[in-house]
Amino acid sequence: MPAFKITVAYDGTDFIGWQRQASGTSIQGLLEDALGELDEREVAVMGAGRTDAGVHALGQVAGFSLQRAIAPDALVRAMNVRLPESVRVISAEGAPASFHARFDASAKTYRYRIWNGDVLSPFERRYVWHVIGALDLEAMREAAAMIEGRHDFKAFQGTDSETQSTEREVRVSRIANPQKALLEYEISGTGFLRHMVRTIVGTLVEIGRGRFPSAWMNDVLASRDRTKAGPTAPPGGLFLVRVDYN
Amino acid sequence: MPAFKITVAYDGTDFIGWQRQASGTSIQGLLEDALGELDEREVAVMGAGRTDAGVHALGQVAGFSLQRAIAPDALVRAMNVRLPESVRVISAEGAPASFHARFDASAKTYRYRIWNGDVLSPFERRYVWHVIGALDLEAMREAAAMIEGRHDFKAFQGTDSETQSTEREVRVSRIANPQKALLEYEISGTGFLRHMVRTIVGTLVEIGRGRFPSAWMNDVLASRDRTKAGPTAPPGGLFLVRVDYN
Repeated sequence: MPAFKITVAYDGTDFIGWQRQASGTSIQGLLEDALGELDEREVAVMGAGRTDAGVHALGQVAGFSLQRAIAPDALVRAMNVRLPESVRVISAEGAPASFHARFDASAKTYRYRIWNGDVLSPFERRYVWHVIGALDLEAMREAAAMIEGRHDFKAFQGTDSETQSTEREVRVSRIANPQKALLEYEISGTGFLRHMVRTIVGTLVEIGRGRFPSAWMNDVLASRDRTKAGPTAPPGGLFLVRVDYN
Repeated sequence: MPAFKITVAYDGTDFIGWQRQASGTSIQGLLEDALGELDEREVAVMGAGRTDAGVHALGQVAGFSLQRAIAPDALVRAMNVRLPESVRVISAEGAPASFHARFDASAKTYRYRIWNGDVLSPFERRYVWHVIGALDLEAMREAAAMIEGRHDFKAFQGTDSETQSTEREVRVSRIANPQKALLEYEISGTGFLRHMVRTIVGTLVEIGRGRFPSAWMNDVLASRDRTKAGPTAPPGGLFLVRVDYN
């Protein structure tokens, strides 16, 4: 059976998230339904990362096997005609039968967008967190740098998670300021806990607001206690940008 | 009564257009309702241009008078808390009592965005016309230049219009190509007929597709016949960018 690796972009606003659930529309479910129709059998799609409800993707990666042979370009077209416009297969390629989108990923990159201006553009309303009031960008940058390295991120994990190990390696954690009032937090690492990026962002914003000094980020990390960290930032600002494979 | 001039941005996707009608949600209706609540009386809002259903604005301008005195900054905030996030008042200023948003405008600028790549980004789906197949950009640019100047634009007017004079002056009509696969048609002039920009764009795309030579644009203009022009391009690609006043 030919195996494929696809790259998928989606506007997560109207979905229950990546993962198929008992009710509601998920990205995984839409892809599986499109492929099931195409391959005339049930197809299981494995995603590199399970994005939550309302989270977007520019470059989610997924893998699956089909019974029928199909050229990657034709697969892209055949999937896109069966998907809503809010989900697009950007590219497809053949993959080894052993390809596992989640376990084979060597790094994932997320971006979190914050709009810190008075008036939020109607065209950005689904794609940023609108934070009102001055933010201390330098303090936020100092705190963001403390995230880099290998740490136990238990303090930043959603309380309903049951992951065995909460240690992860973060290679990049930095804040860009590409235009006035727009902050883009980029984080790249080998793996992420549930709600980890959004909780880091919620904590960074507490620091930016001056409620805590930048060194507080280290205290939160060391505490391994979710109740010490800031609130979970809303999902609309978060994008899964890229998944890397060796 | 203090008079005001406001600049408004909106995502037109979910609205019946600028103008208040018997049913459906209009931008004008939303602004009038917000101001009516604020001023505790009925307020009439005049817009510079009546954008159609699904058409967006980055810089629509509107004028109105209030009974109560209010600082422009406070007015912006008070209106935005009463409006959906898809409609934002960007700025406000005091205006002379005689200010007329439509008749006083010296120029309006529209932009029409065309995505000419294979796969349309989910984040652009409401804000471009997705045109599939090669477009001859040079031919389109030649044809766009023929629009500049004072012409009778009757051939580009929606068939249900009853305007007296169909002569208009277009100062700028040109196509930019700011990134691969993205075309941005910009048109600026003293006034526009109903559907004029979208019908010009539909005609430009016919030329781009090679169905007609660029000189056909002059023939369509000269014909004064709507049936000679190309189809009306879809509303989602169109933005009212700016309104100028002397």
